[in-house]
Amino acid sequence: MAKTKKAPRPRADTPKGFRDYFGTEVDARKSMLDQIAAVYHRYGFDALESSAVETVEALGKFLPDIDRPNEGVFAWQEDDAGGKGDWLALRYDLTAPLARVYAQHRNDLPTPYRRYAMGPVWRNEKPGPGRFRQFYQCDADTVGSASMAADAEICAMLADTLEAVGIPRGDYVIRINNRKVLNGVLETMGLTDETRRDAVLRTIDKFDKVGEAGVRELLGKGRLDASGAYIDGVGLSDAEAAPVLNFLTARRADNAATLLQLMVAVGDSAKGAEGIAELQEMSRLLAAQGYDEDRIIIDPSVVRGLGYYTGPVFEAELTFDILDEKGRKRQFGSVAGGGRYDDLVKRFTGQSVPATGISIGVDRLLAALMAKGRMQGVARGPVIVTVMDRDRMGDYQAMVAELRSAGIRAEVYLGNPKNFGNQLKYADKRHSPVAVIQGTDEAARGVVQIKDLVLGAKIAESASLEEWKSQPAQREVARADLVDEVTRLLSQDG
Amino acid sequence: MAKTKKAPRPRADTPKGFRDYFGTEVDARKSMLDQIAAVYHRYGFDALESSAVETVEALGKFLPDIDRPNEGVFAWQEDDAGGKGDWLALRYDLTAPLARVYAQHRNDLPTPYRRYAMGPVWRNEKPGPGRFRQFYQCDADTVGSASMAADAEICAMLADTLEAVGIPRGDYVIRINNRKVLNGVLETMGLTDETRRDAVLRTIDKFDKVGEAGVRELLGKGRLDASGAYIDGVGLSDAEAAPVLNFLTARRADNAATLLQLMVAVGDSAKGAEGIAELQEMSRLLAAQGYDEDRIIIDPSVVRGLGYYTGPVFEAELTFDILDEKGRKRQFGSVAGGGRYDDLVKRFTGQSVPATGISIGVDRLLAALMAKGRMQGVARGPVIVTVMDRDRMGDYQAMVAELRSAGIRAEVYLGNPKNFGNQLKYADKRHSPVAVIQGTDEAARGVVQIKDLVLGAKIAESASLEEWKSQPAQREVARADLVDEVTRLLSQDG
Repeated sequence: MAKTKKAPRPRADTPKGFRDYFGTEVDARKSMLDQIAAVYHRYGFDALESSAVETVEALGKFLPDIDRPNEGVFAWQEDDAGGKGDWLALRYDLTAPLARVYAQHRNDLPTPYRRYAMGPVWRNEKPGPGRFRQFYQCDADTVGSASMAADAEICAMLADTLEAVGIPRGDYVIRINNRKVLNGVLETMGLTDETRRDAVLRTIDKFDKVGEAGVRELLGKGRLDASGAYIDGVGLSDAEAAPVLNFLTARRADNAATLLQLMVAVGDSAKGAEGIAELQEMSRLLAAQGYDEDRIIIDPSVVRGLGYYTGPVFEAELTFDILDEKGRKRQFGSVAGGGRYDDLVKRFTGQSVPATGISIGVDRLLAALMAKGRMQGVARGPVIVTVMDRDRMGDYQAMVAELRSAGIRAEVYLGNPKNFGNQLKYADKRHSPVAVIQGTDEAARGVVQIKDLVLGAKIAESASLEEWKSQPAQREVARADLVDEVTRLLSQDG
Repeated sequence: MAKTKKAPRPRADTPKGFRDYFGTEVDARKSMLDQIAAVYHRYGFDALESSAVETVEALGKFLPDIDRPNEGVFAWQEDDAGGKGDWLALRYDLTAPLARVYAQHRNDLPTPYRRYAMGPVWRNEKPGPGRFRQFYQCDADTVGSASMAADAEICAMLADTLEAVGIPRGDYVIRINNRKVLNGVLETMGLTDETRRDAVLRTIDKFDKVGEAGVRELLGKGRLDASGAYIDGVGLSDAEAAPVLNFLTARRADNAATLLQLMVAVGDSAKGAEGIAELQEMSRLLAAQGYDEDRIIIDPSVVRGLGYYTGPVFEAELTFDILDEKGRKRQFGSVAGGGRYDDLVKRFTGQSVPATGISIGVDRLLAALMAKGRMQGVARGPVIVTVMDRDRMGDYQAMVAELRSAGIRAEVYLGNPKNFGNQLKYADKRHSPVAVIQGTDEAARGVVQIKDLVLGAKIAESASLEEWKSQPAQREVARADLVDEVTRLLSQDG
């Protein structure tokens, strides 16, 4: 008889580039985001949760007349009899949706509109190690204010936020700069040729990596990079390149001195002078609130990509050392960035609306907190009430109910209770601090055994057989004392 | 000269069936979900945040060889040179992803695995009034335990959850039933004909709507419905229909009495007896933890759809009256439901894995809390520091910094300060309780004006011109007393 061909079983896998988050991973991120939201809220920012799905048209990256407009985003076409349905897509950041929301609801929203948003975004990109196609963003923006006070506020809030999540003062610095200053420098250099101008901009963006000497070479004749390849230079003379280097190295210990350096770098460019005035204003406002150069400092080497921003730009950097995967010390680096972008809503309404904002790299900041030991990788699991006698499940349930009423995380073992070893293995897998045991004998005597699994694990690691046998990690107490004894043990374990 | 044809501006709209959530809407939902998560956590459930995107294959509703398998879900095909990319889709609930996660990670997860999940799901359905294509679900499930203790625990946890979010005891009831009992009833009736059997099941599902008399008619000759249409009956005699009616009306005030009624209804069906034993066991376990019939009661009229569940089913109902859109009193009804479904993981692994769980209707529960006045629709906005003198922005920023340091939500006005009326309008739109005002004169004298906007609004509603002029809602205090005075006002407003 021919075998019936069965449908193959589906693979139990996330799609490529997607992942799941379990227990402590979810809790740690949530706890960090809650702390961030509390600061944002205190600053008067309102939560916004926009739809995860937008029309491709509103996202603005793609035109709906292209056959499959899903490069970079996950997109699909709405079902429609005539095949003329809208193209929809998952949002790829939280800024494009903010533009759409503000344009749509601007008559109902306050102006200025301060909003924060936290949530997943999706990118249709080639996944790689540590590069996922769904990840969290956490943004705060002020829409509708051209005032430098808005930018200063964002920077102050960012400093408060980092301290609130557990990065102490001294372990971070927020570096601010202004695009207009950079444009002033280019103006002063008389760089009119687009190609050369872009080449200079690309070079500036490499300052963090190659340093002053590297940039000097790249602006001039070229440079042999670490891999041995020769990178062609822009071909400027030393004199021509000087304003760029003056600009990039203008940072001094105090903002006033830095601004003096920048004045030299921009020469007589009006654009440049405007940028310097804006930096001066931000610096003044921040100082008035007590944010000095130890927390927020003008640093002209901050560029943050090349398009997009139109005025102030900011970046938060963690300054403590961590060990990289090869055991070498290196600085943790950037965890947040942002700036002013003044054409957010224009696409929709034709009206220019000023806006400024910040985006925190949720995963990087979490990694930083883990590296600093401010966030526990493994949290304590629940107290486990074991099942010695299947018929007395009601008694065990009553025990966990009592423990929970006292605010203690507790559960009864719900697997097959036959093999007691499996119950203890389960408790171990759950990182349980305490197991509660009551067999028929204990029940008859009105007592329970309470096993300190934290102490037990320590003893198992180091104790001799004799010590092990004496089982100091297990204690018999009266049933009525169950909650008190467990509470005592938990507070002891911290 | 011919006008250049410009690309039309994109519409600033969410896609049909999608919406945004603002400020208080986000906060209220988050606060409710946090309360729910705290209870789940105390019961030993672990958070799980699975990928929002799954392969269509893993979701299991559709086969990837159909041309556009996006009926019911939002789906798209992965880019791939040969057009052979996987079909991906947004999850349409949190249960199908749980099955995939458990199958994928079963060697690393504890067994039983208790998990909760909260987040948006997406349905590619025709949107309608109040029907959205993205909405929140909030689920808790125990995978890998066949014990009735798992089902009892879910019901107890649901009761605790409802009380934790603000539904007092007496305002809700959790009704439990068991599918095996229903199957036992059908067995006892000797209903072997598929068509008739399905017709009986469909009729049973209408009990909530048409009541006992209605079901009797529908099982028999048929029934004239409210719209005047005649609905054909199943054609059973009164004697044949009796077990169904005995079953549906078996609920008594105490579970023991109900179980006796059910024993009559299932006759000598072994299946039915098994279901009754399961209900008995749940009832016993719940009573042992103090959950009596005032909170969790056996009610055979709970059916919860017709496929899917294999044993216990549960439903949480709010029993208080609300007024419907026509001003008629009606019961609020169901806010959560669930049950046991034992073939969750089998599709992936071939192994049967028992599971039971609950899903809370997030939007319905929120609506219930709003209706009960337990959740405020409009929260208090931030304190607004107004800008009387643009050059003194630093001073105003220092004021908000002080207020925030004292934990007070506060912001400086960041719009164009020229028109003071606009600043007060803004404060109004923000639901601000207090405005702080300091002009040049006040600054010189070292004072600030503090305007109680809550009291001001009350006066504006009811006061005479004379009273209004005396402006008791505005007070001048020393600059140094700013924080104290604002704190006093806020505590006064509650």
